[in-house]
Amino acid sequence: MNNWLHKINDPADLRGLSIPQLKAVCEEIRDEILRVMAANSGHLASSLGAVELAVALHHLYMTPRDRLVWDVGHQAYAHKILTGRRDQFPTIRKQDGLSGFLKRSESPYDTFGAGHASTSISAAVGMAIARDQKRDDYRVVSITGDGAMSGGICYEALNNAGTLGSDLLIVLNDNTMSISKNTGALSSAFNRIVTTHFYNERRKEVSEFIKRLPAGESMARFGHKIQESVKGLILPGVFFEELGIRYLGPIDGNDLDELIPTLRKIQQLSGPILLHIVTVKGKGREYSEADPIKWHAPPLNFDLKTGKSPQSKPAPPKLQVVFADALREVARRDSKVVALSAAMLEGTSLTRFQSEFPGRTFDVGIAEEHAVICAAGMACDGLRPFVCVYSTFLQRAFDPILHDVCIQNLSVAFSLDRGGLVGADGPTHHGVFDLSYLRMMPNMVVMAPMDAEELRAMTWTAHKYIEEGRGPIAMRFPRGSARDVFDVDNAPPEIPIGKAEILSEGETVCLIGIGGVVAHAVDAATILEAEDGLRPTVVNARFVKPLDTELLASLAKSHKHLITIEDNVKAGGFGSAVNETLGEMGSKNRAIVLG
Amino acid sequence: MNNWLHKINDPADLRGLSIPQLKAVCEEIRDEILRVMAANSGHLASSLGAVELAVALHHLYMTPRDRLVWDVGHQAYAHKILTGRRDQFPTIRKQDGLSGFLKRSESPYDTFGAGHASTSISAAVGMAIARDQKRDDYRVVSITGDGAMSGGICYEALNNAGTLGSDLLIVLNDNTMSISKNTGALSSAFNRIVTTHFYNERRKEVSEFIKRLPAGESMARFGHKIQESVKGLILPGVFFEELGIRYLGPIDGNDLDELIPTLRKIQQLSGPILLHIVTVKGKGREYSEADPIKWHAPPLNFDLKTGKSPQSKPAPPKLQVVFADALREVARRDSKVVALSAAMLEGTSLTRFQSEFPGRTFDVGIAEEHAVICAAGMACDGLRPFVCVYSTFLQRAFDPILHDVCIQNLSVAFSLDRGGLVGADGPTHHGVFDLSYLRMMPNMVVMAPMDAEELRAMTWTAHKYIEEGRGPIAMRFPRGSARDVFDVDNAPPEIPIGKAEILSEGETVCLIGIGGVVAHAVDAATILEAEDGLRPTVVNARFVKPLDTELLASLAKSHKHLITIEDNVKAGGFGSAVNETLGEMGSKNRAIVLG
Repeated sequence: MNNWLHKINDPADLRGLSIPQLKAVCEEIRDEILRVMAANSGHLASSLGAVELAVALHHLYMTPRDRLVWDVGHQAYAHKILTGRRDQFPTIRKQDGLSGFLKRSESPYDTFGAGHASTSISAAVGMAIARDQKRDDYRVVSITGDGAMSGGICYEALNNAGTLGSDLLIVLNDNTMSISKNTGALSSAFNRIVTTHFYNERRKEVSEFIKRLPAGESMARFGHKIQESVKGLILPGVFFEELGIRYLGPIDGNDLDELIPTLRKIQQLSGPILLHIVTVKGKGREYSEADPIKWHAPPLNFDLKTGKSPQSKPAPPKLQVVFADALREVARRDSKVVALSAAMLEGTSLTRFQSEFPGRTFDVGIAEEHAVICAAGMACDGLRPFVCVYSTFLQRAFDPILHDVCIQNLSVAFSLDRGGLVGADGPTHHGVFDLSYLRMMPNMVVMAPMDAEELRAMTWTAHKYIEEGRGPIAMRFPRGSARDVFDVDNAPPEIPIGKAEILSEGETVCLIGIGGVVAHAVDAATILEAEDGLRPTVVNARFVKPLDTELLASLAKSHKHLITIEDNVKAGGFGSAVNETLGEMGSKNRAIVLG
Repeated sequence: MNNWLHKINDPADLRGLSIPQLKAVCEEIRDEILRVMAANSGHLASSLGAVELAVALHHLYMTPRDRLVWDVGHQAYAHKILTGRRDQFPTIRKQDGLSGFLKRSESPYDTFGAGHASTSISAAVGMAIARDQKRDDYRVVSITGDGAMSGGICYEALNNAGTLGSDLLIVLNDNTMSISKNTGALSSAFNRIVTTHFYNERRKEVSEFIKRLPAGESMARFGHKIQESVKGLILPGVFFEELGIRYLGPIDGNDLDELIPTLRKIQQLSGPILLHIVTVKGKGREYSEADPIKWHAPPLNFDLKTGKSPQSKPAPPKLQVVFADALREVARRDSKVVALSAAMLEGTSLTRFQSEFPGRTFDVGIAEEHAVICAAGMACDGLRPFVCVYSTFLQRAFDPILHDVCIQNLSVAFSLDRGGLVGADGPTHHGVFDLSYLRMMPNMVVMAPMDAEELRAMTWTAHKYIEEGRGPIAMRFPRGSARDVFDVDNAPPEIPIGKAEILSEGETVCLIGIGGVVAHAVDAATILEAEDGLRPTVVNARFVKPLDTELLASLAKSHKHLITIEDNVKAGGFGSAVNETLGEMGSKNRAIVLG
């Protein structure tokens, strides 16, 4: 089966191959991606869709001298396999293995790290400017998915690229869905085009028609412009052309016979160009083409032929499911509760909320800033919005949370999934800044549940808080599953704002944890007691802000050593908050900060 | 002169007036704005341009039941005067006076606070959703400037509005420049239209032409679509229509005879609509129309008739000028230095840099996120970019700084103007979070100069740091002027990274300041010595990160009391950093934190 791939140690090895040979390489890459994904976790469907694109680009462009800037790594597995990392590919997303995303330190072919979406056009514009300043002549290509294109940064970058006029190719890799099914009007415009079977025929018709137009005096000057504009009938190109970008496409991005000649022609053109290619997410297997959302990141050990997964034992629910179900509970009791997400309905399990409350679920696309300000507007007019995104992605909305929600003291609830370390997704995805950045914002309440039961209770607490119009409140919880089952038949206990909970009373040493790592504090106490005969006090802090100052004052008096534990950066985090408070209350005691 | 305005205590008082009477109101509002601006500082030119718009909207819409959402307050002074705040208007931007921006707590007519640009469409979408959920029927109108339209959040919001299809009016108030002259391709598209004198005639011609088209079989189905699309010839509307927004305009927004009938017709339409109006920034006086950039925020005590300013004494240079000139110095020595800003060339005095290095100055529009990622791309390919924006606006780029610059350890320099409290601009513009949010980011160096001379030296230091490829470095400095003149003929002294400076050695008490407030520490020491016989040590910390741990350790040993001083929030700020470090080094001493 592996006739070609073992010979490709470097993209240069692709450059002498014919299109039929390149097609064979594509099939072998697909097999390799599937084989590894059945064994590792990873992003399958996007990568399968972009195999031909990676092959065609490395075939035609003199990488790494020419710069390929991939937006997010989901689509870049073939690129990794082709650029000297074939042998390491089975280590992807494993400890000390390849990153699941692009990473500059991993390869000179990874020109720009990408974990968060919508950044590649901006980075490519920067590289194109650098090239022009140096009077160099390498080419710069950004590869951006249609999902990423819903992010405002792309628009800022296109607007800038259009003004500058530098040579730059933007490949819009349109698989008609990003992670969730795409939302947004621009995406509808794409779909309208792509699903028109006869668009090519019509294009020809229109072109012929224009040639036959009567060239009346008053219209002569409009001749060329009409031709340009008539594109708008059947192409979304006018959108890009208004931004000063030359639009080409759409073409079939899984067909090398179409892709390679088109790219070759584009290499003769100058200025900023957008090539719209249409690819099939999950391309190459019936099962993954049929359900690309499921196959975005498939379960382990699926059968390579059928796609069937081994039977798995019933497992405790994921925390994201616990949250989504708790939100359904409060939404049943309060018709003003609505949920917003940014292309993360699956990732946050809000799909469960959506199936019960479709009219109260708003997926705005990869647009965290808009999501937060939109929620602020909703709160002004009496709704009770929950903004539900991953901790790492909410970083995008730092200013909207601060400027639009907190300074105005609007009652918006934030649910931050994937707080703390996230494991295989790596550094760009860790949610380890949230406690620090949320706590500095005026009026914001910041809480973190120690377990699934408390997550449910805090969801109710957040709802009560915004129902009473008391201002913004945020809750962060880690990736993972509930450890225990718990009662969901009755209302959860109310959690008073700013009150911590003593889990076990001891002496001398006091361990104060926040969030999921409270479990580590409990374990540590057990070990300390068993091995050293110490009997530490263990506290579940629950709140980073406001802190339980009364309890802190008393603990600082009654214990010699305070130790705080959090899965957040130390700078400005929970331990830092505890010490700021101890200082302000004039206590001489200070916590040792573990983070 | 004031025949009408004194009768307008509420927008309802506008509703019975005729168009000629409303025009008289407009003139009186203009006089009032000019009179107050000659006495106060404030945003003149934008407000003059939007007088007719404010009058027309309050005349036709049942405010405050109908929601007007103004983007930024620069354009909303007439709105303030019309909504019961006429008598307080002379207090604008003064202590305890009216805010210069929209403010919910100030008036029910200020539906959404706005200091940072590009937020109003998002907030309006949220309000429209809330209305639909409540099955209410009030109208929602967003008023967005053409400058704000360059921000990615607007695009995210338009994309969302186009999908939802809720009733919503977006007024694009296009004065063909925002604060600086607009950049960006979309803005060029607007200008192309607006400067076409015969666009109305051509519109008619095209329309007539289309009616005469041969209705051949193959083209019949395209008939309507062509008509829609031909708009693209002469209107930027297709851009918005692709996003699902119905586009109307452009019309003259300073002409009530055109504005009021158009708005009245729009009230009959449903769905999301964008009305493009063209207004003259500085409208109403020859001097302000001629130079709207100067009159964006004019100097005090100008002559109302001629616009002439009183002669002012020669003053020490503003800090922003000191910075811009220092950047010119390093740019002369290193051809790879480039400067980026986000619609803030005047505000940061980068105009001075631009006049010397036009090809190395990049104004990307109100697009801080793109500016930062673009700079990251530049750094990847060997340029030495300085990103120069106000501290408060750089908050928009929190995630790009963290995810694209710091995690990749790219050598980008950040110059944050208006750090600390900014005075009259108020809470939305204070730069009091930067030390906290920058310091939590991996690899980032954070420094703040105590005076103008050190600002120059740190600009050189930042350059040297990125020239050596050591990673990201940020410098923040306050609004204001240099206190002293200093030598600029010689290279400034080198500032070693992470080294603080002892300004005066004393005992018992040690005052450690960072940035401009070091001057307060010096003053405090003088008072303490004169009044209490104390002789405190005074330290200029220079760096928030890395801290001078060696010096800190020694100060903590040799002094009983450490006191830190900063103009930043206490949460996670400089004092918090000092205490984190003291804790990590096992010192028992802790600083008292003033912030």
